Amino acid sequence: MERDRQALEIAVAATDSAVHKVEAPPPTTSLEKMKTRVKETFFPDDPFRHFKGQPPRRKCVLGLRYLFPVLDWLPYYNLSFFKSDLIAGLTIASLAIPQACMHAHDHNTHMYIYKKKLTHTSFVPPLVYSVLGSSRDLAVGPVSIASLIMGAMLRQAVNPNTDPNLFLQLAFTATLFAGVFQASLGILRLGFIIDFLSKATLVGFMAGAAIIVSLQQLKNLLGIVHFTKEMSVVPVMASVFHNVNEWSWQTVAMGIAFLGFLLVARYVGMKRPKLFWLSVGSPLASVIISTLIVFLVKAQNHGISIIGNLKCGLNSPSWNKLVFDKAYLSVVIKTGLTTGIISLTEGIASGRTFAALRGYQVDGNKEMMAIGLMNVVGSCTSCYVSTGAFSRSAVNHNAGCKTAMSNIVMALTVMITLLFLMPLFAYTPNVVLASIIIAAVIGLVDVPTAFQIWKLDKVDFVVCLSSFLGVIFISVQEGLAIAVGLSIFRILLQTTRPKIVELGNILGTNIYRDIHQYRDAKGVAGFLILAIEAPINFSNTTYLKERMTRWIEEEKSMNEKELDLQYVILDLSGVPTVDTSGISFLIDLKKTASKFDLELIFINPLGEVMEKLQRANKMQGFLGVNSLYLTIHEAVFSCTSFLAERKL
Amino acid sequence: MERDRQALEIAVAATDSAVHKVEAPPPTTSLEKMKTRVKETFFPDDPFRHFKGQPPRRKCVLGLRYLFPVLDWLPYYNLSFFKSDLIAGLTIASLAIPQACMHAHDHNTHMYIYKKKLTHTSFVPPLVYSVLGSSRDLAVGPVSIASLIMGAMLRQAVNPNTDPNLFLQLAFTATLFAGVFQASLGILRLGFIIDFLSKATLVGFMAGAAIIVSLQQLKNLLGIVHFTKEMSVVPVMASVFHNVNEWSWQTVAMGIAFLGFLLVARYVGMKRPKLFWLSVGSPLASVIISTLIVFLVKAQNHGISIIGNLKCGLNSPSWNKLVFDKAYLSVVIKTGLTTGIISLTEGIASGRTFAALRGYQVDGNKEMMAIGLMNVVGSCTSCYVSTGAFSRSAVNHNAGCKTAMSNIVMALTVMITLLFLMPLFAYTPNVVLASIIIAAVIGLVDVPTAFQIWKLDKVDFVVCLSSFLGVIFISVQEGLAIAVGLSIFRILLQTTRPKIVELGNILGTNIYRDIHQYRDAKGVAGFLILAIEAPINFSNTTYLKERMTRWIEEEKSMNEKELDLQYVILDLSGVPTVDTSGISFLIDLKKTASKFDLELIFINPLGEVMEKLQRANKMQGFLGVNSLYLTIHEAVFSCTSFLAERKL
Repeated sequence: MERDRQALEIAVAATDSAVHKVEAPPPTTSLEKMKTRVKETFFPDDPFRHFKGQPPRRKCVLGLRYLFPVLDWLPYYNLSFFKSDLIAGLTIASLAIPQACMHAHDHNTHMYIYKKKLTHTSFVPPLVYSVLGSSRDLAVGPVSIASLIMGAMLRQAVNPNTDPNLFLQLAFTATLFAGVFQASLGILRLGFIIDFLSKATLVGFMAGAAIIVSLQQLKNLLGIVHFTKEMSVVPVMASVFHNVNEWSWQTVAMGIAFLGFLLVARYVGMKRPKLFWLSVGSPLASVIISTLIVFLVKAQNHGISIIGNLKCGLNSPSWNKLVFDKAYLSVVIKTGLTTGIISLTEGIASGRTFAALRGYQVDGNKEMMAIGLMNVVGSCTSCYVSTGAFSRSAVNHNAGCKTAMSNIVMALTVMITLLFLMPLFAYTPNVVLASIIIAAVIGLVDVPTAFQIWKLDKVDFVVCLSSFLGVIFISVQEGLAIAVGLSIFRILLQTTRPKIVELGNILGTNIYRDIHQYRDAKGVAGFLILAIEAPINFSNTTYLKERMTRWIEEEKSMNEKELDLQYVILDLSGVPTVDTSGISFLIDLKKTASKFDLELIFINPLGEVMEKLQRANKMQGFLGVNSLYLTIHEAVFSCTSFLAERKL
Repeated sequence: MERDRQALEIAVAATDSAVHKVEAPPPTTSLEKMKTRVKETFFPDDPFRHFKGQPPRRKCVLGLRYLFPVLDWLPYYNLSFFKSDLIAGLTIASLAIPQACMHAHDHNTHMYIYKKKLTHTSFVPPLVYSVLGSSRDLAVGPVSIASLIMGAMLRQAVNPNTDPNLFLQLAFTATLFAGVFQASLGILRLGFIIDFLSKATLVGFMAGAAIIVSLQQLKNLLGIVHFTKEMSVVPVMASVFHNVNEWSWQTVAMGIAFLGFLLVARYVGMKRPKLFWLSVGSPLASVIISTLIVFLVKAQNHGISIIGNLKCGLNSPSWNKLVFDKAYLSVVIKTGLTTGIISLTEGIASGRTFAALRGYQVDGNKEMMAIGLMNVVGSCTSCYVSTGAFSRSAVNHNAGCKTAMSNIVMALTVMITLLFLMPLFAYTPNVVLASIIIAAVIGLVDVPTAFQIWKLDKVDFVVCLSSFLGVIFISVQEGLAIAVGLSIFRILLQTTRPKIVELGNILGTNIYRDIHQYRDAKGVAGFLILAIEAPINFSNTTYLKERMTRWIEEEKSMNEKELDLQYVILDLSGVPTVDTSGISFLIDLKKTASKFDLELIFINPLGEVMEKLQRANKMQGFLGVNSLYLTIHEAVFSCTSFLAERKL
C-alpha cells in the first residue's frame, strides 16, 4: 500500500531516526530576561565591553576618549595627515563659499535673514563636531533640505519680511530644540527611531525635496519678481506661468549656460573619478566667472539681479535671543523635531556610509550626541541647524581627508573668505546661485535606485512614490509622515497576515520544504504539514484560527485522497515569539483538531515559545504525550510507525 | 585532529548528504502576487468559495442567504426550536428589564435622557440583528461600557442637564456614525482592525471600566445628592468623602443587603451550573422585592430615593433629529468611532466565543455589517448604540436558545413590560438598581485571567495593567489608546530588535539547534552558524549589521579556539520576507565577511526571499557558487570536505 511504501522510504532515508526531546532553555528569572532584553534593545553594540577588566586609570582614559573622540587621533597627528586634511578642507570650503552665498542671496524670501549668520553656521558647528564626532569623513555644515523645511514651517507662524528679527530668533530656538532632541535620542539610546526612515522613504523624500527646492529657484532662474510663497508644485507652477511677462531673457540665458556647465562638469566628474576636481571646482568657478562677467558688462543694468552689498562680521552670541514664548513654542518645537530628525538621518547615514567604505565603526548613538551638542552650541552662537551633508562628505572623502581636521580647515577658510572677501561677491548674479542650487540638489533625484527598488520590491516602491508625491504635492512633513506611516503599516500587516506554508518531504531525504517552492517536495499521505512564519500574537490569532480551520476543512473534504487525514503537523521553527493570545490560539487549535479527529503535533518550538508552552501546559495540561517533536521527520517517522503497528 | 574527527562524525550521521539545490518558487507576475496578497489580507476566509461552479439560480439563493442569515434557519424552524427560544428569550428579558430601569433611573446624570428611549434600544436592534446576524447565541441590546463612554464623551460638548434635547440628538448622531463605521469596516473587509485590541488590553480595559462604572454608582449606593460629574477615580473618591454628611444609612443598608444577595446568587450560579437560573433571576427578583418593600413601608419618606413616575410610549422616528452641525461634528464622530469599536469588539468576541462552543462559524466581516446596520437603523428609531453583550449572551446560551428568535422574544417582552407595566416600577429604589449594576459589572474584573497573563508573559501584563490604570486614572479613551499603542509598539520592537540565535550540531545527527536551548547542541569548529528569526527590513538592518559584525569580531578574537573561523553560515529559514533594505543588508554582510576572510553562506531562503535574492544577484552578482544550501548540514558537510581536500 501507498502508505507502507512511503513509510519504508522515510525509514530508509533516516538512519538517525532516534527521537530527540524538545528542550526548553535553561530557566532564568524574569529580571534576568528583562536585563537581556533591555540590553539588546538599547545597547546592542555593548559600548562598555572595552572597559571590562581594565584598571581604574585606564578606564578613565577610555572614558575621556569615548566622550571626546578627538583624543583618538590628536595625539598621533602628524604633518602628512595635515597635508591631506588641508587639501580636503580647502576643497570643501570651495563648495561651502558659494553655498553660503546661495543661502544669503535671496533677499525677498525667508532665506534672507540668514545672510549674516552663515559665517557662523559654517564655522562653529564644524569646530564642535571635530572634537565630539567619531566620523573622519563627515563634512559639517547647513544642508539645503533642513533649512528649507525650517523656513517653510516657521513662516506659518511669523512673516520673515515684516518681522525678520523674530523670525531669526525662532530659527535659533528651533535649532536649540533640534539639538536637544538629537542629543537626547543619543543619550536615551533611542537611535533606532531614525531607522524607521527606510531607504525607500528617503529616496522618495530626497527626490521630492530636490524638486521643491529646484522649483523655488525658478524665481531666480527666470528673473521673476513676483513669486508665490507656497512650496508645493501646483501654486509654484501657476506662479511661473502667471508671470510670463516678468521673465528676463538675459537671466534665462545666463542661467541655462551656467546650469549646463555645472551639470556637464558634474557628469564628467562622476564618470571619470580622476577628474572629480572638475565637479568640485565648478561651483566656485561659476561664481567667480559670473561675478567677473557681471562686473565687466555691468549686467545688473540689463535685467540681471545681483546679491548686492552684504555686511559681514562676527555676530554676538545668541543665547539671549532664544524665544520660549507660549505663542510660538508649539511651532518652534515641531520645527525643531522635524528638522532635527531629517538632518540627523542625513548625518548618521552619511557617517555610516563612509565609515563602511574605510572599514571603521561609527557609533550611532554617540554621533547623535555629537550632532545634537553641535546644534545646541550652534543655537547659542547665531547658527541654524547643521549636520553632515552627504554630498559634501563625499567630496571630503574623495579629496583624501584623514581626520576631522579638514572640518577645522574648512571652517577657518570660509570664515576668512566671508569676513574679508565678501564685498567681492556683491556682483554675483542670483541666477548663477540658483543654477548652483539646482545642479546640487538634482543629484538627490536618484532614479537608478528608485528603479532598483521597483525591480526588487513593489510595495517598497509604493512607499518611495508616496513619499515623493506627498512631498511635492502636499508638504514636506506630511509627505514624510505618509511614507513612514505606510512603512510601519506594512510591518504590522506582515505580522497581522503571516504566511502559512504547506511543507512536503523531499523524496529520499529527511528534509521538508514548501511544496510550492520545491517541485521535489511531496505531501505525505495522512499528514497535513504546515509552517507558520511569524510571531503569533494578538494581531494575528483570529486570522490564523480562521485560516487554519479552513485549511483543515479543505484538506478533510478532498475525497480523492485514498487515505484519511490523521495528523496535522505544525512547524513552529519560524515562530520567534508568542504572547498570551498566541498561547490561547495554540490551545484552541489543539481542541479544534481533536474535534476533527486529528492529532496536532508541534515541531521545534524555539526557546521563548517552548518556555511559554510548558508554563501554559502546567496550568491547563493540553499537551499530549506525543505532541512535541524536534524535527518534522521524527514526527512523521514515529507517527507512521505507530499507524503501521496499530494496523498489525 | 579535532576537525577531522568532527567531519567524520558528521559524514557518518549523514547518509543522505547529496547536496540539494535551493529553488525559487515558480515565477508569477506581480499582478498575480498582488492578487494573492489582497485575497489573503482582505478575504482570508474566501467567502465566495461556496459559490464556485454553482448554477446561477443557486448562486442567487446562496447570495440571499449570505446577506440574510435568517434564511438559513427560518425555513427549517419548528415548534421545538420555538419552545427553547421562548424560554431563553424570557430569561434574557428578565435581565433586560431591570437594566432598562437601570439606565432610566439616574435623573441627575446624562443617563436620564435615555429613559424614554430604552424601550427601543431593547426593541428595534434585536429585531434587525435577528434578520442579519449570523450568530445564534448573541443577545443584542445596550451595553454599559459603550453607554458610559458615549455619555462621558458627549458631555464634553454639551451639558445634558441644561440642554437635554441637543444631548439626545448628539447621542443618536453618534450612534449613526458608530453604525456607519462598523458597517464600513465590514464592507471594506477591514475587520482585522479590531484584532489590535488584544486579550490583555481588553482584560485591563474591562476591569478599569467596571471600576469606573461601580464608582459612579456609589452616589446611589450611599444616597449622596451632590456628586461630581467627573469619571476618574480621584475626583469620585474625593466627592464621596467630601459628602460624608449626605450618606443615608437606610440607603446604605438596603444597598449592601441587595448587593450581597446578588453576589451570592451569582457565585452559586457560577459554581453549580444547574442553579444558573438563580443568578439569572436574581436581578428581576431584587427589583420586584425592593419595589414591594418600598411600597409597603413607604421608604421613600425615609431617605431612600426612588425612580419615580416615568412616561413611556413608542417614540417617533428620529432621523429628523440627527445633527450634522459643524460645531459638534468632530466630537460626535469621535464618540461614534470609540463606542463603535468598543461595542463591535465585544459583539464579535462574544459571537465568536459561543460559535466556537457550539462548533459553528461566525463570519467577522458579515457580523460587522449586521451590527453596523442595526445601529444605523437604531439611530433612526431613537436608539443609542447597541451590540451583543457577553454576559447576556452567556445567559441566552445557557438558557438553551436555538436561533436568533430568542432576541425577538426578548424584544417583544421588554416592549410590552415597559409599555404597560412601567408605572409599577415607580417605587423601585435607585439603590437596588445601583446594586444590580455593580453586581453585573464586577464580573468584568477578571483577576484569574490577569494572573494567567502575568504568569505567561510579563510584557502582556504591563499592557493589561496600563490599560487598567489608564482607564481608571486618566480616561476611558486614553487608557485604551495607551494600551493599543503599547501593543503595537511591542510588535514593532520585536521586528526592530529581532532575535539572532547561534546554532550548534546535535551530536550524532544532522540537526542544528540553538546552543542555549539544547545542551546537546555543540558549535562546529571553524563555523559560526547563526539564525535570524524575523523579517529583515528597513527597521532592523542597522541593528542586524552592527550585531552581526560584533558577533563575527568576537568570534574571531577568541584565541582559545585552536581552529580559525572560516565560514559564517546564516540560516534564513526564519526570515519570511525581506525588503530592499534587507537585500542591501545581505549584500553588505557578504562584503563584510570577505573583509574578515570569511565565506558567508545562506541557508534555505524561503520563497519570497529567494526570489528577491535572485533578482538582486542578477543586478549585482554578489552570490558566489557555493553561497546557497538547502540545509545547514549540507553546507557544513560540503565545506568540511572541501577543507579536508585542500589539506590533502
